Amino acid sequence: MEPILQNVARHIQLNSTEIEFFLSLLEPRSLKSKQLLLEEGKICKYSTFVLSGCLKGFTIDKNGFEHILSFATTGWWIADMYSLITQQPGQLNIQASSPSEVLLLSKTNQDNLYREVPKFERFFRILTENSLVASQQRVVDNLSLSAEDRYRHFCEKYPSLVQTLPQKEIASYIGVTPEFFSKMRSRLLKGR
Amino acid sequence: MEPILQNVARHIQLNSTEIEFFLSLLEPRSLKSKQLLLEEGKICKYSTFVLSGCLKGFTIDKNGFEHILSFATTGWWIADMYSLITQQPGQLNIQASSPSEVLLLSKTNQDNLYREVPKFERFFRILTENSLVASQQRVVDNLSLSAEDRYRHFCEKYPSLVQTLPQKEIASYIGVTPEFFSKMRSRLLKGR
Repeated sequence: MEPILQNVARHIQLNSTEIEFFLSLLEPRSLKSKQLLLEEGKICKYSTFVLSGCLKGFTIDKNGFEHILSFATTGWWIADMYSLITQQPGQLNIQASSPSEVLLLSKTNQDNLYREVPKFERFFRILTENSLVASQQRVVDNLSLSAEDRYRHFCEKYPSLVQTLPQKEIASYIGVTPEFFSKMRSRLLKGR
Repeated sequence: MEPILQNVARHIQLNSTEIEFFLSLLEPRSLKSKQLLLEEGKICKYSTFVLSGCLKGFTIDKNGFEHILSFATTGWWIADMYSLITQQPGQLNIQASSPSEVLLLSKTNQDNLYREVPKFERFFRILTENSLVASQQRVVDNLSLSAEDRYRHFCEKYPSLVQTLPQKEIASYIGVTPEFFSKMRSRLLKGR
């Protein structure tokens, strides 16, 4: 449980009773590679904290193409925020990209947590702000940068993912086909 | 001040002392059309609430093209979230698209507000979650939808903006050139 307590301690301070209460709300789960945690069309019931491994959030368009919205590795949270907030069916799939250990915080428990330990409002406010910054940067990048520059940004931001993820997943995140990505990457490696 | 109190009352309840304190932190400002509230390279010092008119947040790429990240009309908040959080120079410009009346909440006052009336943590947590949902939807739309479908989404989401904004600003938000946008719009109006 140490990684999640470190994550929380970056933004708020808890006493031992609050720590105990918080930990009692979390449900550990092990995911195999490619195991789905959430399927599009379903209601998202959990905020998920990644202890180890890597999860991806993605949509599938009407032509069957996969579009990756986000990755979450150790120390990150992931959810279909739209579905979690509204409790309406969402369009996001959340899947383990590699064998992963996660902690689930159900919406009911999260609301409970806000009521019992209001400083968690602050914690999730700050977390959501950081996600918003990353998401807005991605909108700007997608609008204003070439695929090459988007890939460079990705490598700078997620150096660990560049090494571990399948190339087709990075291609999907960047917003290009695997074929285009492969050619672009060879060109960049040759320094052209 | 009524619109901002209604905005706050959607998510938290304040007593009269808290209302008075909150209002004392806000600075009203009138903006002329095209007046800049924030310039790229500067540090964002305010969360801005729009009483009337319309503001836009945009970046300018290395080729001089404008990319609109967000619009804010009556009842919406706008800021360069990255710069506001980190107090580092940002890349966003915030400009009035039409004559506008706004209320500024400085970062100092906002931190003060969190300290004195902690339920504002909840208010801004919920607001930020809603912005994150919108931003993530936009990432998905940009990756998976055609320009026509992005325009349809825009019309559904922001019917008031479709009527009032210059076409080149909508084009910039959709992520196409004004020329392409104009041709696409004629085609859609003809029902082809």
